[in-house]
Amino acid sequence: MTTEAIDTESLINQIASDAREASLVLANSPTEQKNTAILKLAKLIEQNVYKLKAENAKDLSAAGENGITPAMLKRLELSDRMVSDMLAGARQVAELPDPLGESLETYDHPQGFSIEKVRVPIGVIGIIYESRPNVTVDCAILCLKSGNASILRGGKEAYHTNIALAKLVTQALEESGLPPKASQFIPTKDRSALNTLLKLDDKVQCIIPRGGEGLIRFVAEHSHIPVIKHFDGICNLYADKELDIAQAKELIVNAKCQKPSVCNAAENLLIHRDIANKALPEIAKALIGEGVELRTDPQGKAILDTCDIESEIAQDDDWGTEYLDLIISIKIVDSTEEAIAFINSYGSSHSDCILTTDKEAAEKFLNGVDSATVYWNVSTRFTDGFEFGLGAEIGISTDKLHARGPMGLRELCSYKFKIVGDGQIKT
Amino acid sequence: MTTEAIDTESLINQIASDAREASLVLANSPTEQKNTAILKLAKLIEQNVYKLKAENAKDLSAAGENGITPAMLKRLELSDRMVSDMLAGARQVAELPDPLGESLETYDHPQGFSIEKVRVPIGVIGIIYESRPNVTVDCAILCLKSGNASILRGGKEAYHTNIALAKLVTQALEESGLPPKASQFIPTKDRSALNTLLKLDDKVQCIIPRGGEGLIRFVAEHSHIPVIKHFDGICNLYADKELDIAQAKELIVNAKCQKPSVCNAAENLLIHRDIANKALPEIAKALIGEGVELRTDPQGKAILDTCDIESEIAQDDDWGTEYLDLIISIKIVDSTEEAIAFINSYGSSHSDCILTTDKEAAEKFLNGVDSATVYWNVSTRFTDGFEFGLGAEIGISTDKLHARGPMGLRELCSYKFKIVGDGQIKT
Repeated sequence: MTTEAIDTESLINQIASDAREASLVLANSPTEQKNTAILKLAKLIEQNVYKLKAENAKDLSAAGENGITPAMLKRLELSDRMVSDMLAGARQVAELPDPLGESLETYDHPQGFSIEKVRVPIGVIGIIYESRPNVTVDCAILCLKSGNASILRGGKEAYHTNIALAKLVTQALEESGLPPKASQFIPTKDRSALNTLLKLDDKVQCIIPRGGEGLIRFVAEHSHIPVIKHFDGICNLYADKELDIAQAKELIVNAKCQKPSVCNAAENLLIHRDIANKALPEIAKALIGEGVELRTDPQGKAILDTCDIESEIAQDDDWGTEYLDLIISIKIVDSTEEAIAFINSYGSSHSDCILTTDKEAAEKFLNGVDSATVYWNVSTRFTDGFEFGLGAEIGISTDKLHARGPMGLRELCSYKFKIVGDGQIKT
Repeated sequence: MTTEAIDTESLINQIASDAREASLVLANSPTEQKNTAILKLAKLIEQNVYKLKAENAKDLSAAGENGITPAMLKRLELSDRMVSDMLAGARQVAELPDPLGESLETYDHPQGFSIEKVRVPIGVIGIIYESRPNVTVDCAILCLKSGNASILRGGKEAYHTNIALAKLVTQALEESGLPPKASQFIPTKDRSALNTLLKLDDKVQCIIPRGGEGLIRFVAEHSHIPVIKHFDGICNLYADKELDIAQAKELIVNAKCQKPSVCNAAENLLIHRDIANKALPEIAKALIGEGVELRTDPQGKAILDTCDIESEIAQDDDWGTEYLDLIISIKIVDSTEEAIAFINSYGSSHSDCILTTDKEAAEKFLNGVDSATVYWNVSTRFTDGFEFGLGAEIGISTDKLHARGPMGLRELCSYKFKIVGDGQIKT
């Protein structure tokens, strides 16, 4: 091991030990004190915006020299919009109810003592992310409000910006009387830091990777600590034979086009054979009107060709591709069962929708599709913590353990059993 | 790769694909049908008990030749007691309410559609265990009732017994009209089977290892699939200065001695300095009366020496050792805070208890100790799914994600969001 790697290993161990200690204080800190720290942080960011932008300029200029893509450069930039979103997010989280302490279940044991299941923080959460510097602040705040200590590992491209933001987080914690180590940014670009962190399962209780699929797979494969994953979405729409075509057309256009670059936008459209001749041309025209490219199976293409509507033949890969772009794959199916089987096979279990006026088909679909969110006549674009009434959102889980679908503050919590009696013993 | 390893890899892939398919049927199978299969299995075990014992005899004789320890031999034996426990367990699980379909939360979106969070199965669960053959039946039944397909990987020592039990499971599924692949036992002793299984994160949603710490660590370190872990317990008792000594004595003896070999038995006893002179000798005598060996810090030893009570000096290792035996470590502390810090440092976050008549100290302890189950004047021996009113128990989680503490049928479930509207689109 190189000296740098050894130094990094002890640094990460120290950070994790400090986080564990801070987490025990934070778990029982009053709501008011946590809110004060969050609002103070917003104030500090506002007051230091020019300094932050100067640090961000260093990152942007280094990134430019390294030939970064324009899309990545945009994610890296601490724009006015990013700053105002961070501030709005902080103020909103401060106003949300504290998730801790709520009694989830109670049970009276026949021997006369009580068992209460109470919501508590997870403990120490490691967050691994890429170039967007706002994640540093967003995640620090969500963890703080839910009583968790956070260890933040941001992308090396945003190093200077993240260090500057993390200093303000520490200052806000200190000035509010909370342990300053309750949120720590890993101050090294050394790659071994991540590998070390992922093995500290005695000090860190949860890892949340945020970013591209490569990062998330790496973390899931190397972590000895439980991971909550947020893969992207291959969302499907199924237009059943009992169809309100006008409503369906509007909804399909919305699910595909309103913001095609996000995980809850639709990628595949399935249409029941019995309605396809009538509905597909109308829907296709509406999509083309929004600039969408159509890729369809031979049966769909035959229908579209008859109406002189342009489309390509879909390749096998298309059905499992997340385009994140103005492209949609279209397939004719014979039944709701076939639609369900297709979605369970090609979808990513994120968000899928049936369009129908038939209650029976809808119920079959809602029960049969094995996805985090299943819709009946509502656009998949609604899959989002805010829309679901969770307040803030830390991400959307495509796992089935712990949290599934949009995750808010409560999903950043665990629970404990509190048992109170007067000397009961087991016989 | 050897031919055997390649064959094993395709075998495990096939098992996982079949399990995934079966899980989609099982997720929506009626409660009645699942109960029929469970009761049929109990009947089949009863009818085939002699054949099962003949298969078990093969395993026992092979184990004897391999020089297995008597304790392991005992775990391997399909005794009358093990059979009757399996049967009782099956009948009990059949009577428990179905955890699926329950509405957990609802939310009405301002745009006029409804969001309902509903309990659903996890999907496919892999269970990795060691030599006890009853685990094959217990886990198949718990997964079945909770709507999950199971893939069972038992220890090679119990191979013949497990194969025979698994055949009965398949028969019970078939005869009840459920997919026979809903519960599959891996029919090879090849070690590479486990490594293959742990990587199939596209087909298997959850891994539960059951057994010794070595097995659990191996699985947690190598799995690409989320794992629910069940480590053993280093449970602590803290006798506060405000103490009902008679009650404390009885409870301490119970927590240590009633069944010392289990994870919820106490291993460490902390006593507040202000009560130690008075309480420790009485407690120590009671423990010695039950055959318990005392290992104490120098201050505790000084008190015991004064009263001519035999004890050893505890070594550093003792505080973090799970004895699972009639041994207890004893330490004098200055405050509730010191007790809490000790437990958070040396305990295994399983089950810890404060003995006190002081409500303030108790609340400090219940909030401050970061364990799955925290007790006030109740024996730690109660940490158990049955005692907590969960019905059956698949294990006790020492993780903080998904499930913490005793896990029943509901903890074998995930949830999905069902959304119903009439054409709402995102604007």
